[in-house]
Amino acid sequence: MPNPTAAIILIGDELLSGRTRDSNMFFLAQELTRLGIDLRLAQVIPDDAATITATVRDVAGRFDNVFTSGGIGPTHDDITADAVAAAFDRPIDVRADARAILEIYYADRNIEMNAARLRMARIPDGAILIENLVSAAPGFSIENVHVMAGVPRVFEAMCHSLLPGLASGRPVLSQTWTVMRGEGEIATRLAQIAGDHPQVSIGSYPFSKDGVYGTNVVVRGVDGAAVEAALVAIAEAFPA
Amino acid sequence: MPNPTAAIILIGDELLSGRTRDSNMFFLAQELTRLGIDLRLAQVIPDDAATITATVRDVAGRFDNVFTSGGIGPTHDDITADAVAAAFDRPIDVRADARAILEIYYADRNIEMNAARLRMARIPDGAILIENLVSAAPGFSIENVHVMAGVPRVFEAMCHSLLPGLASGRPVLSQTWTVMRGEGEIATRLAQIAGDHPQVSIGSYPFSKDGVYGTNVVVRGVDGAAVEAALVAIAEAFPA
Repeated sequence: MPNPTAAIILIGDELLSGRTRDSNMFFLAQELTRLGIDLRLAQVIPDDAATITATVRDVAGRFDNVFTSGGIGPTHDDITADAVAAAFDRPIDVRADARAILEIYYADRNIEMNAARLRMARIPDGAILIENLVSAAPGFSIENVHVMAGVPRVFEAMCHSLLPGLASGRPVLSQTWTVMRGEGEIATRLAQIAGDHPQVSIGSYPFSKDGVYGTNVVVRGVDGAAVEAALVAIAEAFPA
Repeated sequence: MPNPTAAIILIGDELLSGRTRDSNMFFLAQELTRLGIDLRLAQVIPDDAATITATVRDVAGRFDNVFTSGGIGPTHDDITADAVAAAFDRPIDVRADARAILEIYYADRNIEMNAARLRMARIPDGAILIENLVSAAPGFSIENVHVMAGVPRVFEAMCHSLLPGLASGRPVLSQTWTVMRGEGEIATRLAQIAGDHPQVSIGSYPFSKDGVYGTNVVVRGVDGAAVEAALVAIAEAFPA
């Protein structure tokens, strides 16, 4: 059975302007690889309600899991929850369970509850809350779409709450063999080895260090014996 | 006149597996902001020819400029040039001008030209070469799609060759005001200020440091006077 598939939608003008360098996709990609869930697509889109709604609609139908990051805080530019509700034609309002979580958290810290903070309890009808052990305000799952925060510490905490409950697959194993020769020198032989080992994917990543060219050859696959066989063939073709 | 728009397509299994953290989008986003070209979309897709062709076709019709990164080296997994040619129904083969660039570069370094390296001279009919001052093998532009390398040093060199020739717009100015209060405390007043200053976009980015919560408020816009007016209003509402 093939592994489940996934896409991630990163929502935020700050990523598209170059103000912020993504770390949430990088984090989630590694977690999904460990779980055997194949990340097939990432999209970075602006803080625009119509774009968020259209993108969620499009992507939700094409992948087993969709993760979103960003736009669920208390400020005017936090529009993701409403835009995702619209994608599923679901009503959205302050929900009692989410409100209770925030009230307890703020009461413990002598922080006043106000209208802005209460926006973080807006949850679409029928959605399941995603726990946030960092700052309480929950994410939520609606059908196969998992809506999480953009702040990396909170995003990662939500992933830790969410991911163990998802259907997973066979973890993708990865082995790297470093060859101290340029890609152009090893490419022909490497293509033959790739053809001989159709069960794995073989990637080639050139680098240069202190003026010396080298290539990291990465073998990936779910079958450990197949990964090992390809790695042995590569090591024999290009001895250290 | 509105600024020109752009999208970037990052091609590479290594980004989707979490092996590599993107830096090319981050670099290009900052360059485009300086040039007044609005980056509206980034997509990360796998090394799969059909996906590359379909994505390029889709995106090329929706944005003024499309940049791709990755998959134009000498190895079997470098399939971007052929997939982009297919998106435009253009023939592709080794082209004399690209071949000459490679031959000179390799002859100078006593590196043998071989079939694998020659693949890097495969250029679609009618495409314009993008100079690569790092490792010679060129990128290319075909209509509004600019095909560049994935290795960050080479990608950046190609951007420096390409970007000055593109139609640019009004640079987006950005000013940040740091407020040492949580987002939830400033959100209501901030939303009023955002409503009062429709010419700019105001983003709110929470952080915590040593247990203290703060918010970076970022004002962005092409009109310097409008950016300044919004910044003054924010500074008055939330004094340092």
